[in-house]
Amino acid sequence: MKLALIGAGRIGKVHAQTIASHPEVTLAAIADYHAPAAEALAAQYGTRALSAEAIFADEDIDAVLIASSTPTHADYLEQAARAGKAILCEKPIALDLARTRDALQVLAAHPVTCALGFNRRHDPQFAALKQALGEGRIGHLETLSIISRDPTPPPTEYIGASGGIFRDMTIHDFDMARWLLDEPITHVHAEGSCLIDPAIGEAGDVDTIMVTLTTASGRLCHISNSRRACYGYDQRIEAFGSAGMLQAQNETKTRLRFTGEPGQIEEQPLWFFLERYAEAYRREISDFVDAWKQGHTPLAGAEDGLEALRLAEAAERSLKEGRRIALDDIH
Amino acid sequence: MKLALIGAGRIGKVHAQTIASHPEVTLAAIADYHAPAAEALAAQYGTRALSAEAIFADEDIDAVLIASSTPTHADYLEQAARAGKAILCEKPIALDLARTRDALQVLAAHPVTCALGFNRRHDPQFAALKQALGEGRIGHLETLSIISRDPTPPPTEYIGASGGIFRDMTIHDFDMARWLLDEPITHVHAEGSCLIDPAIGEAGDVDTIMVTLTTASGRLCHISNSRRACYGYDQRIEAFGSAGMLQAQNETKTRLRFTGEPGQIEEQPLWFFLERYAEAYRREISDFVDAWKQGHTPLAGAEDGLEALRLAEAAERSLKEGRRIALDDIH
Amino acid sequence: MKLALIGAGRIGKVHAQTIASHPEVTLAAIADYHAPAAEALAAQYGTRALSAEAIFADEDIDAVLIASSTPTHADYLEQAARAGKAILCEKPIALDLARTRDALQVLAAHPVTCALGFNRRHDPQFAALKQALGEGRIGHLETLSIISRDPTPPPTEYIGASGGIFRDMTIHDFDMARWLLDEPITHVHAEGSCLIDPAIGEAGDVDTIMVTLTTASGRLCHISNSRRACYGYDQRIEAFGSAGMLQAQNETKTRLRFTGEPGQIEEQPLWFFLERYAEAYRREISDFVDAWKQGHTPLAGAEDGLEALRLAEAAERSLKEGRRIALDDIH
Amino acid sequence: MKLALIGAGRIGKVHAQTIASHPEVTLAAIADYHAPAAEALAAQYGTRALSAEAIFADEDIDAVLIASSTPTHADYLEQAARAGKAILCEKPIALDLARTRDALQVLAAHPVTCALGFNRRHDPQFAALKQALGEGRIGHLETLSIISRDPTPPPTEYIGASGGIFRDMTIHDFDMARWLLDEPITHVHAEGSCLIDPAIGEAGDVDTIMVTLTTASGRLCHISNSRRACYGYDQRIEAFGSAGMLQAQNETKTRLRFTGEPGQIEEQPLWFFLERYAEAYRREISDFVDAWKQGHTPLAGAEDGLEALRLAEAAERSLKEGRRIALDDIH
Repeated sequence: MKLALIGAGRIGKVHAQTIASHPEVTLAAIADYHAPAAEALAAQYGTRALSAEAIFADEDIDAVLIASSTPTHADYLEQAARAGKAILCEKPIALDLARTRDALQVLAAHPVTCALGFNRRHDPQFAALKQALGEGRIGHLETLSIISRDPTPPPTEYIGASGGIFRDMTIHDFDMARWLLDEPITHVHAEGSCLIDPAIGEAGDVDTIMVTLTTASGRLCHISNSRRACYGYDQRIEAFGSAGMLQAQNETKTRLRFTGEPGQIEEQPLWFFLERYAEAYRREISDFVDAWKQGHTPLAGAEDGLEALRLAEAAERSLKEGRRIALDDIH
Repeated sequence: MKLALIGAGRIGKVHAQTIASHPEVTLAAIADYHAPAAEALAAQYGTRALSAEAIFADEDIDAVLIASSTPTHADYLEQAARAGKAILCEKPIALDLARTRDALQVLAAHPVTCALGFNRRHDPQFAALKQALGEGRIGHLETLSIISRDPTPPPTEYIGASGGIFRDMTIHDFDMARWLLDEPITHVHAEGSCLIDPAIGEAGDVDTIMVTLTTASGRLCHISNSRRACYGYDQRIEAFGSAGMLQAQNETKTRLRFTGEPGQIEEQPLWFFLERYAEAYRREISDFVDAWKQGHTPLAGAEDGLEALRLAEAAERSLKEGRRIALDDIH
Repeated sequence: MKLALIGAGRIGKVHAQTIASHPEVTLAAIADYHAPAAEALAAQYGTRALSAEAIFADEDIDAVLIASSTPTHADYLEQAARAGKAILCEKPIALDLARTRDALQVLAAHPVTCALGFNRRHDPQFAALKQALGEGRIGHLETLSIISRDPTPPPTEYIGASGGIFRDMTIHDFDMARWLLDEPITHVHAEGSCLIDPAIGEAGDVDTIMVTLTTASGRLCHISNSRRACYGYDQRIEAFGSAGMLQAQNETKTRLRFTGEPGQIEEQPLWFFLERYAEAYRREISDFVDAWKQGHTPLAGAEDGLEALRLAEAAERSLKEGRRIALDDIH
Repeated sequence: MKLALIGAGRIGKVHAQTIASHPEVTLAAIADYHAPAAEALAAQYGTRALSAEAIFADEDIDAVLIASSTPTHADYLEQAARAGKAILCEKPIALDLARTRDALQVLAAHPVTCALGFNRRHDPQFAALKQALGEGRIGHLETLSIISRDPTPPPTEYIGASGGIFRDMTIHDFDMARWLLDEPITHVHAEGSCLIDPAIGEAGDVDTIMVTLTTASGRLCHISNSRRACYGYDQRIEAFGSAGMLQAQNETKTRLRFTGEPGQIEEQPLWFFLERYAEAYRREISDFVDAWKQGHTPLAGAEDGLEALRLAEAAERSLKEGRRIALDDIH
């Protein structure tokens, strides 16, 4: 697959490295709104810097990975679809439902392989949990609990443009909940506070949230988020069912254990998503390539982006109105 | 302390054994509505079977432990207070707020040492967590998560008379939340489903719940209950704060570990409250004796029973009305 | 059982407390070479202080627990046997084989219930490991590894009178090895160093040892001892076999876990034998009472003391001579 | 670095893959005694198949990785040194000391960068343990315990040509012991049995061993090996010192945990060296490239191979003669 990368920022660099070491993918070109960034990254990986337009026009390019800033996602996605490129788009497609729905219509009109960057579905541990659920390891799933905490809050400017914690951070957990609960979510309740940094509150956001989801059959799901965990990236899932419980636990660099003052000590969890989801990013690319080659559906697609966004919108409304929101009311 | 036991049922028997092996307490008498039960237990521990009335009238008796059926708690508590006995009363005082408030008024008029059987406050692990919070081990507490699952549901008849899952089961978690959050709880949101046994639903109750509590300063607390956990009694607490996280984990009989098919296996959690809280019951008696001797307040008192009941009532109303309830509205 | 305690020192006090809370045993009397010690302990537990002679002469006393200083064990044991008392004797019977064998002959001539204080056989975790071995959980046992480290070295004067580390400390591990290997040990190899405190070396002893045992069928067993582990009492056993591995792990006061700086921390192991083997001491008394009442053999008897002592002697000789010793050569 | 691979067997394939994905190394050619094997592997990685002789003669090739069968190592190593190639040689250089010493003399006469494939030194967890020891994390190191068990025994034919378990398997642990003990080993004692498969005994070898090493300052080291662990590759190290203990533990694919029947279950250890040491092989290549580029000494060199072999010889003699061997007697 000849794959062009659009976006040479932080997440773009992660993808560039992953693509470079992938046996089946060639990094065909790199574009960035800020051309020198694209040129520097292209030089590092021995490829070309092109404009996004040139990428879409290049018939030799099979696919694009859209890792530019969020407001540009939907436009690039539509252009790529019209150009017949396979698409791997970082989440979210857009911060509002209307724009997202428009993009989905363009995709419907120009059917290409389109994967959405819900990287956690590709994490080996969460994938093993999903598989165990499917195999009935814990019987009927009854409750799910997802804990997701970032090591440090993003800069306040980022907060302002992020669309709010539910769209920016919880959206990963909404997607995970949808994927694991495996049936329609009917209701959303959210609570949130600003406990970490008043500046976040001044930017109109909260930094600590708890969400409860209810499904059609009555399954309950708890999501807990914090913008700051001093010990590192906290990424855990607990699934409870009639025949047992599955727990995806935090991962550490090594299993080295020290015993002495002040106790029995194992390493802190991996620091952030680059460390924790390094393997997930590799698998995400592989899944995308496989889907493109074999014509099957990627593990996460554009529709999943839309549905996660509806949950984020419901949570936001719940927090604002102090009541439980029926998902049917989110259009 | 000469202590009389009222109630010779399951929990009464637990207390009889604990009292018998306590160095500072004499089991002075046992009463039960069903006299032969009192006689059999009295014979086993070499003490007398008396009526409750005779116990209250016996000036030689210092204190009573009320472990009879729930509907009798408030009456016995009032009689004991009027008779000037120190009281250790199993929770709840009553299933409704009005009756509980009446009992508190009698206690106010007849001030005696009065402890309420929130046994979990006496658990060494939860006590260590509480102490670590007090010492600032995790900085400012921000969120709390309490998981509490029974190994098997009680008989359906029990469900009917229990006052519902929030008053019967979650009440322990409400008390734990109040104790650990250490500031006023302002709002309660509850979700609940009947996933385990339709008979529970037919009895008008749910068997699986999630509750979110919000405090005055914005701390968030999650409670998750299930009436059935096939692997045993699941009793865990996670406290998260600005400087770290504390997790009280399930306990096992031994730390023996097997490695082979099908993996690395440690024992299941202890089966139920008798095993898990054996030490807590011992400490509860000791705390009661100390409070009585030294005139200080027991670790959990009648007021704590009232407040936990208000939370249960708020949760019930939230579940019924599908909205978040302000605790100020629960009188 | 009316049980008299001989020896009111550290271990005597442990036993006094255990006996006092045992439902089937009455602490009938306490003797100590230093009479005031016996009197103080007797007063504490509401019993009499007697001389050892008076205890042996008292027909009302069923049994004696010998917890006096090591050099007196064999004499008391013989007197008790001649007086027809059931005996629970702290290990070792004597520090040399000849004296031990004499005591065993007296026991043979005066058959009474005689248990030896190898307390670790009564530890719930090691007992569970023993049971799992018996049930074939790991198939055929092939290797065994026993780690045993004290938190702090004893006073140097103690070292001098202890008979050396193999007789004083490793003897517990030799007994555990015999119990778990469950077949004749044929060879012993020992290495030892003085790494912790030169005073121990000056007293003619070592403080750090490794022993390898070989059994008749070729099973191998490793024992590692240190007189000092800064983190507490280190008591672990690993059994490896054709179908898996069993590991008895250190125990902690609670399972509370902290995550933050400097990592994920659980409590240190319990500090010393009083904490780690509290339950074992209780079970030891129960086993003794049961053996006496029902006429069966206690879990550890005098013969086990002799055999453990032979292993200690072999280890000592191996260390001295720098070679592997055949156990058949130890008479 | 233009690196040629000699040997296209199992371990050769591992290295081919590692080299292919290494950013600084080009796989310049592949040789194998069985030419079609070299050709197939060369085709897979888009490189040439050459004879070993052609490789040594090719001035464009910087370095060779010798992964051919053991008896050819020393010859190839000498030819490579004479040709001025940097060398990464799989252990052992030879199965006997004399041949190894000859090779070292050739290396001395033709000084090139020469690394030996003691892959475990490059394992991130063992490296972290080594670093923590160097930083004084546990104070003075006193004892070391190394457990190393293969999942399944090799074919019997392999056993016959392997040089025996000490030269073939324990040699890795001898190297690890040398590296971590960090001072001269003076004495070796070994015990061994054939417990797994009589065919191994018939081939003149044992399958289960325990070795004790003593160092100049009296540090003690225990090594335990088994040719079969039904639960996977068992690779653990425990270092004990005056200020604490460090334990390198087995690693698993994910940290997913199941609780239910028959307990709390985590995954089995990784199955064998390809999984467990995948990262170590990558680091081994990087260390080799760095050493070559910067002219420093690789983490493990030819001398380390000689010293590990002396320990293996001492262990073999100890097992045969039933006594402790002074390493000074191994020439």
